[in-house]
Amino acid sequence: MTPDTRARVRVTPTRLADGRELIYFDDSEPYVSGGATRRLDDPRPLPDRFAPAADGHLPTGPELRRDPLTGEWVAMAAHRMNRTFLPPADANPLAPATPGAAYQDGEIPAEDYDVVVFENRFPSLLRVPGASDEVTLLDDEDLWETRAATGRCEVVCFSSDATASLRTVSPQRMRTIIEAWAHRTTALNATEGVEQVFAFENRGKEIGVTLHHPHGQIYALPYLAPRTARMLETAREHRARTGRVLGRDVLEAELRHGTRVVLESEHWVAYVPFAARWPVEVHLVPRRDVPDLPALSDDERADLATTYLELLRRLDLFFVDDDTAIPLPYISGWHQAPARQGREDWRLSLQLFSVLRAPGKLKYLAGVESGVAAWVSDTTPERIARRLQEIA
Amino acid sequence: MTPDTRARVRVTPTRLADGRELIYFDDSEPYVSGGATRRLDDPRPLPDRFAPAADGHLPTGPELRRDPLTGEWVAMAAHRMNRTFLPPADANPLAPATPGAAYQDGEIPAEDYDVVVFENRFPSLLRVPGASDEVTLLDDEDLWETRAATGRCEVVCFSSDATASLRTVSPQRMRTIIEAWAHRTTALNATEGVEQVFAFENRGKEIGVTLHHPHGQIYALPYLAPRTARMLETAREHRARTGRVLGRDVLEAELRHGTRVVLESEHWVAYVPFAARWPVEVHLVPRRDVPDLPALSDDERADLATTYLELLRRLDLFFVDDDTAIPLPYISGWHQAPARQGREDWRLSLQLFSVLRAPGKLKYLAGVESGVAAWVSDTTPERIARRLQEIA
Repeated sequence: MTPDTRARVRVTPTRLADGRELIYFDDSEPYVSGGATRRLDDPRPLPDRFAPAADGHLPTGPELRRDPLTGEWVAMAAHRMNRTFLPPADANPLAPATPGAAYQDGEIPAEDYDVVVFENRFPSLLRVPGASDEVTLLDDEDLWETRAATGRCEVVCFSSDATASLRTVSPQRMRTIIEAWAHRTTALNATEGVEQVFAFENRGKEIGVTLHHPHGQIYALPYLAPRTARMLETAREHRARTGRVLGRDVLEAELRHGTRVVLESEHWVAYVPFAARWPVEVHLVPRRDVPDLPALSDDERADLATTYLELLRRLDLFFVDDDTAIPLPYISGWHQAPARQGREDWRLSLQLFSVLRAPGKLKYLAGVESGVAAWVSDTTPERIARRLQEIA
Repeated sequence: MTPDTRARVRVTPTRLADGRELIYFDDSEPYVSGGATRRLDDPRPLPDRFAPAADGHLPTGPELRRDPLTGEWVAMAAHRMNRTFLPPADANPLAPATPGAAYQDGEIPAEDYDVVVFENRFPSLLRVPGASDEVTLLDDEDLWETRAATGRCEVVCFSSDATASLRTVSPQRMRTIIEAWAHRTTALNATEGVEQVFAFENRGKEIGVTLHHPHGQIYALPYLAPRTARMLETAREHRARTGRVLGRDVLEAELRHGTRVVLESEHWVAYVPFAARWPVEVHLVPRRDVPDLPALSDDERADLATTYLELLRRLDLFFVDDDTAIPLPYISGWHQAPARQGREDWRLSLQLFSVLRAPGKLKYLAGVESGVAAWVSDTTPERIARRLQEIA
């Protein structure tokens, strides 16, 4: 029997002490956010993020600069807001609050929660009140274009259990996470100046993750990211040449041969892409042409919850060392249609990849990849697919 | 007095036992390659690289596949040639040969050398005899474009001393390395199917370097790398709009303000770029409009030798921990004009950058960078420049 993952999510927006938004997505009775005895006001003495400094200066947000050699925007996050209240290195800011504690380092003022989304305290992108999206020239130089790095960075807590991982949550909780992603995509797409919403997860110390409490992130970008712009351009060229949606043709070719297909469900297909760049790489796509997460039907979301979990289960069996499965360090991200263009050409996909090429061995990006973005894979897509097929 | 770095380089091409090319660049009497008693024929029983296998099959080279979602070529190097003769993990294949030894694991059959370039034994790019540069479709699918990963991968040994580094070589030796880069650029640009020559160095275990003998690499690519294509496109747009060379305008703006200029010599300028992406990043460019290394004058090469060494000296003082300077792990690469187009729009530059953001702390490429190529810097170009200026 398919687990019942029908959405029963209660969404409760609140504010933290410094004005940041925090939103509870509760899926279980008694809803955490509904029980006043368990949800707290943020007790921390955080100053308002946008209050003037002691010298009267208004806070400045992060900045974007256009690389004159490539035309690409680069965010400079050193102009970050007041970092006085950095938690101690061993603290877990995603842990639920401890009942009765007078002060807590955590970001989430509730004694328990299901799924929570909140604005990152030290964001790379932030719209400071009064910020303009206009381009200005530094020192009047035509080639030195800057603008405010407006947009937003959010954190998504997948579970209140610091020892869990996305793979170990229940199908019901995974469904709630999907609802949270879709909710934030809709809200952020509608926000002033946002061009693209990218929801992603970094897992594993091998890629620099130091906070192991299961969580993901959402970036609402005030420009089209270079890879997204390239994908959109490629999809538009394909449409102009063939009249068809590129993502659909890619999927149909994969299904026609099946060589690299690693997982199929009623509404979803996972395959290793034809030109996989990473030692492990899988794309998970809907069977129907859908531009983004909010456009998924109820059935597609329910199916995604169980299919995503099954994919993560198999990926954690990909590498085995001395009969012990190695939890896969990975990066996963939802490629969604841009906020203000290209919906008709875009097709939703989850890209999940790993830098681990063998137990204890990482793929490093060296000169040819970091310098000129010429990619070299040390394996083949078919080899990756065979391994995932044999795990099934 | 400026050290005399006038080129006195003797170039001696030879072949290794398996047919790979090896070229000595000697700059000191008695020239190593000229003394028959010191240069050996490769004594190893390596089979011809291109000989048929026991089953009669001809070897296949690496493959390129076009990513249908971005249009970019990705090299698949798993189809590598016979790897039977892998040296033991602790061997140093770049060490000079030991006099009198019957067999040696090293790649260089000479008892000493100044600078040596040879074809990588396990290349990501290789033209197998008879290979065509035509695109073919895998399984007849329009979206599955493949072609032979022709081109060439070479190794450049900077010194016969395994404990040296590029920073510690003499100005004369640095000049010889520059001659070797220029020589190889000219030769490879003229090679069938080559579109671009990229000479680079990866230094430091932090970026995955396991062989610490000082060396660099040269990739001759049979396609324009994505970042190079983007840079060329941007330079062409600039020319169309302004009638000027983009790289020259970028340099002039830097010189006009000086804020990010960190080193100046008669012929060269080093600056931190306006939109630096990495925790440490410097561009080193000639004052004159020059498309590539072969186009540098004798004086420019001589000046480059000392200026490059001075830049490396300062970079190794960038991070200090407990009064101890931390040798900077870095990637450096020469952005040269493509082989068959764009020479009039291109301007030579060395890009040198590091993933180290503090002693013991690395910048990792996480979801937003690896997934959609949206870059976030945690510092500012001006802060990087100030540090390099204070070292001077």
